[in-house]
Amino acid sequence: MRILLHRADGVTEPWVRDFAELLPEAEVVVWQEGASIAPCDYAVLWMPPDGLLADLAHVKAIFLTGAGADAILKYGDALPPVPIIRLGDAGMAIQMAEYVSHYVLRYFRRLDEYEKQARAGSWAQLPQHRKEDFSVGVMGMGALGMRTIEALLPFGFPVRGWSRTARQVDGVQCFSGADGLDEFLSGTRVLVCMLPLTPDTANLLDRARLSQLPQGAYLINVARGAHVAEPDLLALVRSGHIAGAALDVFRNEPLPAPHPFWDEPRITITPHISALTIRTESIRQMVGKIRALENGEPVADVVDRTRGY
Amino acid sequence: MRILLHRADGVTEPWVRDFAELLPEAEVVVWQEGASIAPCDYAVLWMPPDGLLADLAHVKAIFLTGAGADAILKYGDALPPVPIIRLGDAGMAIQMAEYVSHYVLRYFRRLDEYEKQARAGSWAQLPQHRKEDFSVGVMGMGALGMRTIEALLPFGFPVRGWSRTARQVDGVQCFSGADGLDEFLSGTRVLVCMLPLTPDTANLLDRARLSQLPQGAYLINVARGAHVAEPDLLALVRSGHIAGAALDVFRNEPLPAPHPFWDEPRITITPHISALTIRTESIRQMVGKIRALENGEPVADVVDRTRGY
Ligand SMILES: NC(=O)c1ccc[n+]([C@@H]2O[C@H](COP(=O)([O-])OP(=O)(O)OC[C@H]3O[C@@H](n4cnc5c(N)ncnc54)[C@H](OP(=O)(O)O)[C@@H]3O)[C@@H](O)[C@H]2O)c1
Ligand SMILES: NC(=O)c1ccc[n+]([C@@H]2O[C@H](COP(=O)([O-])OP(=O)(O)OC[C@H]3O[C@@H](n4cnc5c(N)ncnc54)[C@H](OP(=O)(O)O)[C@@H]3O)[C@@H](O)[C@H]2O)c1
Repeated sequence: MRILLHRADGVTEPWVRDFAELLPEAEVVVWQEGASIAPCDYAVLWMPPDGLLADLAHVKAIFLTGAGADAILKYGDALPPVPIIRLGDAGMAIQMAEYVSHYVLRYFRRLDEYEKQARAGSWAQLPQHRKEDFSVGVMGMGALGMRTIEALLPFGFPVRGWSRTARQVDGVQCFSGADGLDEFLSGTRVLVCMLPLTPDTANLLDRARLSQLPQGAYLINVARGAHVAEPDLLALVRSGHIAGAALDVFRNEPLPAPHPFWDEPRITITPHISALTIRTESIRQMVGKIRALENGEPVADVVDRTRGY
Repeated sequence: MRILLHRADGVTEPWVRDFAELLPEAEVVVWQEGASIAPCDYAVLWMPPDGLLADLAHVKAIFLTGAGADAILKYGDALPPVPIIRLGDAGMAIQMAEYVSHYVLRYFRRLDEYEKQARAGSWAQLPQHRKEDFSVGVMGMGALGMRTIEALLPFGFPVRGWSRTARQVDGVQCFSGADGLDEFLSGTRVLVCMLPLTPDTANLLDRARLSQLPQGAYLINVARGAHVAEPDLLALVRSGHIAGAALDVFRNEPLPAPHPFWDEPRITITPHISALTIRTESIRQMVGKIRALENGEPVADVVDRTRGY
């Protein structure tokens, strides 16, 4: 069995080593621009360069080393008609839950404001927010969204969720589809975006939608930068309608300098670290799926190209 | 029934109102320096001024509007030999759990460093800490400590606890007493102080003890300032042995200006807000205990003057 591996960061050695250990029957071929590659059974990649597409001709499935399929689906019909399989959780869900819980707690307890105050040498207690005024609305109730919801519930936040198809989750007020969006947004104090990027969700968080959040709302975006209309968010933060935002993803990454987000103190920028791929856990999951496919068994996390995720 | 009320902040009206609603048979007498007070059945106070002690002569019990008894026990034998009853949780435990979880997640995910980096306009991923290297050690496994432990466990942190008497808690490595302290400290990456302040715990966290924490440890103190030898902590933070500290309590509050903590970027100062007394919940608890005492029933949270908590 031959596996075609592409890593945008060029760091391939640990991936080759882990595959050799967990799937010794496979030969891992590292893709290189211009080099000729013998036909491979599977491909393991994330954001493939254009030149790689031709080498996917013989693969039985394409494995993504991330949870989102947006970076590959942009190739549309140029992709071979084989399963595209994304990572399901693989250690990312808990990381997201940590990141989101941290910022929800930080905004709720006003710890960002306290730290700013302390840097200015001031000691003053601020009125506490009330939990009943601090509902958290999670957009996307998939592997990542659900784990985050589970982390928030024990703290007693009113939690609501929004998905494409209707869902029922104990203790969570559920909304779905375009019809449910207005009510979901207008009752959400902290909006957490954990959606896949699809034609339906790109630019979803524009001025009109963000304005539906109540005055003093917060945004946490850990999905993709393209969900958010960046100038609209900036205007709403500057006007005070949005009290703060924690952004891990951006239209262009690294976030270019200059970009007005850098200078806005109420916008927190992290460099796409909310959930890093955990190599060994990811390879273990891919190896399990390859073994299943070889046995003719079904596998989870196959991307639905029509839905776009 | 007459209840003597003292509030150091002078804000007594809402307390009188809530008592009137929840215990209508009681007359609440607001204590004032110099005014003569008819004998009272119960006292409700926190840090009583010296002049108040004489008016405690006839009370059947003293109710504290906080969880710690250190502020009253300093009067020792000058106190009448009646039960001193502290608040048990009363809405403070969840607040502590929020505060501590926030700082543990912040240090674990290096979000303090990321935010500092972003303020300098830099985009760079840092190596992630590993959870197995990020054990959280909670000193004090009482009402507050246990709730915090419950909040930390689902995130998968290795959790250890330290108490005076031996305890057993599922999923928690428990240590107790002076004998267990060395091992507790040397395996703790994030030390969380939730102890009562007693002769045994005052100055506990001095240079010798804090140095037993591993290199790169963190301190979160939400108990009392007097647990910590402040110059020792400062020296260890400056040397880098302690990578950061989140302090909610101090020897002198408000933390005076100047104080070297204000200028140390790795020390986060909050103005004693980790767990605020929730008036209505506290009064409801006290009223329940007064009713029990009147019926000759036992009540929880009676301070043991010998132990000091
Ligand atoms: N920043 C990072 O470091 C990072 C890391 C990993 C992943 N991510 C992002 O996180 C995303 C979510 O991952 P996941 O594993 O949780 O995905 P998932 O399991 O596929 O869940 C996706 C969720 O979004 C909902 N959804 C999709 N389209 C929708 C629409 N048009 N309207 C309303 N809801 C919609 C789905 O609804 P249904 O339940 O009805 O299907 C589902 O609940 C990934 O696609 C990726 O972009 C970011
Ligand atoms: N910063 C704030 O805003 C704030 C607010 C509320 C409370 N507090 C502080 O938090 C403290 C804890 O409150 P709590 O309600 O959790 O108290 P608690 O229920 O009485 O629990 C105290 C815990 O500390 C342990 N302990 C006491 N002395 C010890 C010693 N010498 N060595 C080792 N362990 C010892 C006890 O051990 P055993 O289990 O063996 O008894 C117990 O586990 C209060 O006393 C107060 O000072 C601070």
